[in-house]
Amino acid sequence: MNPTIELLKSHRSIRKFTDQPVSRELLEELVSAGQAAATSSHVQAYSIIHVKKPDNREAIAELAGGQRYVATCGAFLVFCADMKRPTEAAERTGARVVRGMTEQLLVASVDTALMAQNMAVAAESEGLGICYIGGIRNNPQQISDLLGLPEHVYPVFGMCLGYPAHDPDVKPRLPVEAILKEDSYQDDSELVAVFDDAMHAYYQSRRGGPKDSNWSQNLTPLFDTKLRPHMRDFLVKRGFEMK
Amino acid sequence: MNPTIELLKSHRSIRKFTDQPVSRELLEELVSAGQAAATSSHVQAYSIIHVKKPDNREAIAELAGGQRYVATCGAFLVFCADMKRPTEAAERTGARVVRGMTEQLLVASVDTALMAQNMAVAAESEGLGICYIGGIRNNPQQISDLLGLPEHVYPVFGMCLGYPAHDPDVKPRLPVEAILKEDSYQDDSELVAVFDDAMHAYYQSRRGGPKDSNWSQNLTPLFDTKLRPHMRDFLVKRGFEMK
Repeated sequence: MNPTIELLKSHRSIRKFTDQPVSRELLEELVSAGQAAATSSHVQAYSIIHVKKPDNREAIAELAGGQRYVATCGAFLVFCADMKRPTEAAERTGARVVRGMTEQLLVASVDTALMAQNMAVAAESEGLGICYIGGIRNNPQQISDLLGLPEHVYPVFGMCLGYPAHDPDVKPRLPVEAILKEDSYQDDSELVAVFDDAMHAYYQSRRGGPKDSNWSQNLTPLFDTKLRPHMRDFLVKRGFEMK
Repeated sequence: MNPTIELLKSHRSIRKFTDQPVSRELLEELVSAGQAAATSSHVQAYSIIHVKKPDNREAIAELAGGQRYVATCGAFLVFCADMKRPTEAAERTGARVVRGMTEQLLVASVDTALMAQNMAVAAESEGLGICYIGGIRNNPQQISDLLGLPEHVYPVFGMCLGYPAHDPDVKPRLPVEAILKEDSYQDDSELVAVFDDAMHAYYQSRRGGPKDSNWSQNLTPLFDTKLRPHMRDFLVKRGFEMK
């Protein structure tokens, strides 16, 4: 296992941070490393809002479901899928631009995620800890208003960055054999059952305190309700019409 | 710049590969590193199809728009957003599961991208080259049929992996100041103009042969037509109904 792979495999979300700030210079270096990720047709369909105003960080912490570390981490970023920049660039060349295609939503969301993950790796290579904040999508309209996001830009997730003040366990993952399938899709429910036992054992022994659950049980509240049912209307309103 | 950041910044797509195969052992190591990426609520909403059958690789190379390296690279993978595994796991606990939410499409697509990007970094750290194949979405239904993808699973992109047989230039990216915005969204069209000049100079001098274009001009064919207009119906048919 080379040191990079070792770094990747040591990832865990960090939610407690020291007071040490993240310098602007380091942040720019991390963004630059993020941008080096592959991008669909070179479109670079993303922007990052570095939220510095304490009031906005407090507000977003609440809007994201009461996640205090959004307000307390060294640097808080909102990663946005940005179809405004590339479509307006094409428009300035004289093109008649078509917007709102489902494919454009996918391209921008995937581009944003690839860039963010490169940035997460870069941050961890510098000794920082990170935590993705999907809770941004709990109240995406209010957060878009706070950050002055224009049409054709939507907040995909946030990221807390900072120097770790705790050392949580690395959470197990599904067995590789469940994920990596040969030539065609094969059912993996037996491997899920094995993983449920492994997760149950993990929850019993983890340093963060025991919990009586497994993977499948943990997923139930995600899927027995309409998950973030506002997302469709929100995206349409922002110009991602999923045509 | 630490060695990991140096590695990230040296990324360029590789499209010519030596005959050296990618071992199963290495592939599993890379997938395992990929899985270590953050995943929304631990849902791990992805599967990878390792396409080994030569006939299927030939077919996918054509279906993806005539990309020969899909057939000739060391290993070809199709990354799928997989909502089948987690929703069925929740269902087996007795939950009444809601499917087809727009948010589920986003979660699965982003999860897949984070995992793939970790895997790309791991591959490059082992001296491999990679190339994402978004062309998978040119004919996603045919490719889904070839790979026997069930409902609630869709192919997001492919990835070619192998040992590089060429050494292309690293492609420039937008200036960091365009991507990283402070506290609120600011227009960056002036920075785009600067970048257009930089890209024009790059295309004139790149080792792959000169081209008279810039970033904005290059984007025009992406946006002056309905980009992959089949995607909406395809996703709906697969159970990603964007409700």
